[in-house]
Amino acid sequence: MAINQQLCLQRRPSGEVCKEDFFLRETDIPDLEDGQFLVRNEYISIDPAMRGWIQDQESYFPPVQLGEPMRGLTVGRIEASRHPSYSVGDLATGMLNMQTYAISDGFQIRKVDPDIAPPPAWLGGLGMPGITAYFGLLDIGRPMKGDTVVVSAASGAVGSIVGQIAKNLGCRVIGIVGSDKKSKYIVEELGFDAAINYKSEPIGLALSDLCPEKIDVYFDNVAGKALDSILPFMKKFGRIPLCGMISIKPGEPARLDNFFALISNSIRLQGFVMSDYVPKIKMAVDELKAWHQSGQLIFKEDVRTTHLENFPEVINDLFSGKNEGKLVMKLSND
Amino acid sequence: MAINQQLCLQRRPSGEVCKEDFFLRETDIPDLEDGQFLVRNEYISIDPAMRGWIQDQESYFPPVQLGEPMRGLTVGRIEASRHPSYSVGDLATGMLNMQTYAISDGFQIRKVDPDIAPPPAWLGGLGMPGITAYFGLLDIGRPMKGDTVVVSAASGAVGSIVGQIAKNLGCRVIGIVGSDKKSKYIVEELGFDAAINYKSEPIGLALSDLCPEKIDVYFDNVAGKALDSILPFMKKFGRIPLCGMISIKPGEPARLDNFFALISNSIRLQGFVMSDYVPKIKMAVDELKAWHQSGQLIFKEDVRTTHLENFPEVINDLFSGKNEGKLVMKLSND
Repeated sequence: MAINQQLCLQRRPSGEVCKEDFFLRETDIPDLEDGQFLVRNEYISIDPAMRGWIQDQESYFPPVQLGEPMRGLTVGRIEASRHPSYSVGDLATGMLNMQTYAISDGFQIRKVDPDIAPPPAWLGGLGMPGITAYFGLLDIGRPMKGDTVVVSAASGAVGSIVGQIAKNLGCRVIGIVGSDKKSKYIVEELGFDAAINYKSEPIGLALSDLCPEKIDVYFDNVAGKALDSILPFMKKFGRIPLCGMISIKPGEPARLDNFFALISNSIRLQGFVMSDYVPKIKMAVDELKAWHQSGQLIFKEDVRTTHLENFPEVINDLFSGKNEGKLVMKLSND
Repeated sequence: MAINQQLCLQRRPSGEVCKEDFFLRETDIPDLEDGQFLVRNEYISIDPAMRGWIQDQESYFPPVQLGEPMRGLTVGRIEASRHPSYSVGDLATGMLNMQTYAISDGFQIRKVDPDIAPPPAWLGGLGMPGITAYFGLLDIGRPMKGDTVVVSAASGAVGSIVGQIAKNLGCRVIGIVGSDKKSKYIVEELGFDAAINYKSEPIGLALSDLCPEKIDVYFDNVAGKALDSILPFMKKFGRIPLCGMISIKPGEPARLDNFFALISNSIRLQGFVMSDYVPKIKMAVDELKAWHQSGQLIFKEDVRTTHLENFPEVINDLFSGKNEGKLVMKLSND
């Protein structure tokens, strides 16, 4: 009989996440009740937010408790079902956590159609990052045709979608990235108008060349120095959807030298998370799918085939910028 | 013949504003042209924003240039007029700067009716601070009846109006101040529900007692530590109108340990200045007047009768919290 393997939180990390912060637990898989189905997880989404979920701090989700399986979005295949809408062989995605098997009653689960995009894309462009990009840009950033939109972590899972949507709306789009390879990727493959490699040139200097008419929307995935450098270049009544703080380590403060620009240019800085938009997720995914199918939205995933216990080294690649596109673990069958 | 005395910027202050940063200049008063009138300034508004106007930094106004008269809002009496709508003896308010006489064509000048409130109140509750409080609270904070509203610098020119408007709307209102005397004033005279003296108790500790259901709107006049302490107490989808940064000296950074709360609670932090609302100012003043006349809005001014050259010591009282209510200079005739 199958055994469920779970990656559980052993202790809260201080600094970088490491192997010793987790342990593997094996448990039996209980029998299904009516209205339930059993999913075998095949892909697990690796997201910057995970680092926050294992801190002992109140947030939009409760912290993962010690001894509990690590929270995670997955795509898996249904192996048994007593649920009328889910059949054996179907692919499904949802918050099914870092484990080989999960039982679900269908709550906040979406079906995955591999004819529209391969399963890992449902954790990227058609998953949390895509939906986050969609609502942050459209509902908070509110760009208009002709606006200048800047996005940080622009080759990443969220940033790459933000930039492409903004281009689809007729905006001028500038991406901030951490390597020349990524600069080339977002301009040549994704169609951004320009890229700034923050490691090789000061963001402020680059912006004064690239944005003589200043910035309408800055979609912020990183906070920290990038946000501070961009504040003086925001246009009057500019909008900053604040999506992530990948550049700030847990426990570190944000230091903003240009904070006053928020007042002097009447700027709106607004945090949000995907779960604010739960009732509208289907609408977003339908539009993302349509753009993808018409070739106006390219998805890229960086799939690492490995075992659950290697999660720490995979997620650390996110923070050092070693991934290329949406980072996904594929659970190895070895 | 009358001579115009002007307080002009000599050099840009480093640190506290001091006497040596300004000089007095005497100039002739030119003859009036058609459509102009001559105002003799009687009262000058002393505002925290003045410290920013003399820095060499782009803002919502251009910086005051070296050798130019200091910018300032005034109330004065018309001594001569070739303008059809302004007559000798009328009182008027507008940006007529730190000088004894000013010539105006009526652009952005409002008439002052001393039967509604005495002239200094037209620089406070019926002037920039009142209008700023009105739009920041109503347009950005958007409180609803029953909401919890917190305001910093709560006994000051803007904060005292914010709190009273919020009370008029049926909110629960907590003010942050810097002395027990001010605590007593805002609760007993202005009708706030509670006060926190940040000098005698940590803001966070006080809020956990006073706001078990957290805060809907934080009207921020100070930034800095108060903002940081309040962030973790903001309710999901809370709003923070960012009006001033009186606690941060020019050139100092904002340091926010709790910046992530903006994301985890989907908070909107939005800067603004009164001039964003120029087309709607009459509407605001009409409503402020009505509240004042019905006794629902109390104004308090701290009028210092002195000479132009004493401006530096008067404004420094603002930042050390020595004023009580709206700080106004009355030009002495001695």
